[in-house]
Amino acid sequence: MRFAPSVVDFTDVTSPDTPLLARQLIRFIRSTIPLAEAMDLQLAGLDDDSLTLFAPLPPNVNDKGCAFGGSLVSVMTLSGWALVELALRQRGDDCDVFVGESTVRYLSPVWTDFTSVARLPVDASWSSFFRSLDSRGKARIEVSCVVPGDGDKPAATLIARFVAKRRAAPVAVAAATH
Amino acid sequence: MRFAPSVVDFTDVTSPDTPLLARQLIRFIRSTIPLAEAMDLQLAGLDDDSLTLFAPLPPNVNDKGCAFGGSLVSVMTLSGWALVELALRQRGDDCDVFVGESTVRYLSPVWTDFTSVARLPVDASWSSFFRSLDSRGKARIEVSCVVPGDGDKPAATLIARFVAKRRAAPVAVAAATH
Repeated sequence: MRFAPSVVDFTDVTSPDTPLLARQLIRFIRSTIPLAEAMDLQLAGLDDDSLTLFAPLPPNVNDKGCAFGGSLVSVMTLSGWALVELALRQRGDDCDVFVGESTVRYLSPVWTDFTSVARLPVDASWSSFFRSLDSRGKARIEVSCVVPGDGDKPAATLIARFVAKRRAAPVAVAAATH
Repeated sequence: MRFAPSVVDFTDVTSPDTPLLARQLIRFIRSTIPLAEAMDLQLAGLDDDSLTLFAPLPPNVNDKGCAFGGSLVSVMTLSGWALVELALRQRGDDCDVFVGESTVRYLSPVWTDFTSVARLPVDASWSSFFRSLDSRGKARIEVSCVVPGDGDKPAATLIARFVAKRRAAPVAVAAATH
């Protein structure tokens, strides 16, 4: 899954709008979160089940010359956040998405540029997430993020719970339509 | 605990060398971890039980105008890492300190500059940590980090396990002393 971000892999994306929405989302993240810009965060891949972000090592290095734990957890959290935000944007849902809690495991040092791959764990589903959102205006979903390491072993993992809250329609606009 | 970092609080620090070591440590972090410099991380307080880091909001803001989750977890992790690293430096121990795993809770949005206060949880002790380090050259310790919120409620918490490994003495130097 590790590849140069200039070659973004959109294989297996079934909706034609999704690559554009994903590129817009990463531009939005970099323009509104200074630390994402400092980390040089980039879109690296996307399919119908996962979203992959890329970060080069030099701006994300630590005192030992490997990837800084704060960068690893930030890129993993942002890949999970972007997966949820993108699913909402594809559906035309206007929500605020917050990370609620997460569990992080740093399994081996990362000495190179790195990626984080975000996908839903096997026991989570978009359909129940969207059902809750439609009925209550708020929903939670768990996302699993992995920084691949050597071979099949992950270098770091994160399980995070995200909360989406539908934004209230602007009152003036709503009034003007009646 | 939230105060301007220009007024670093060294109340209750019993060892006269500790404030100097702490300032050196923060300079070391900023000079070797580009993201710590980007976050404008600063030392904000120190006593015999805790170490407090400060980060201003502007470089750490997110798309909603509050503190970016990645900045909160990075500052909390670095406060915990600095607490362990400082304890080792005070003792003259030359170790690599890694974060192994952590659990993060984002409890309420942070709309201002923020601090993270790191201390040992009640069931952890420096004495057993140093005993393990002396006997095995390696030891683990849990650290509890809190970003204070409004009133007594924390805005975010992190429990992290750190691993310290004693660095091997350089062979050439060791040989030269015999």
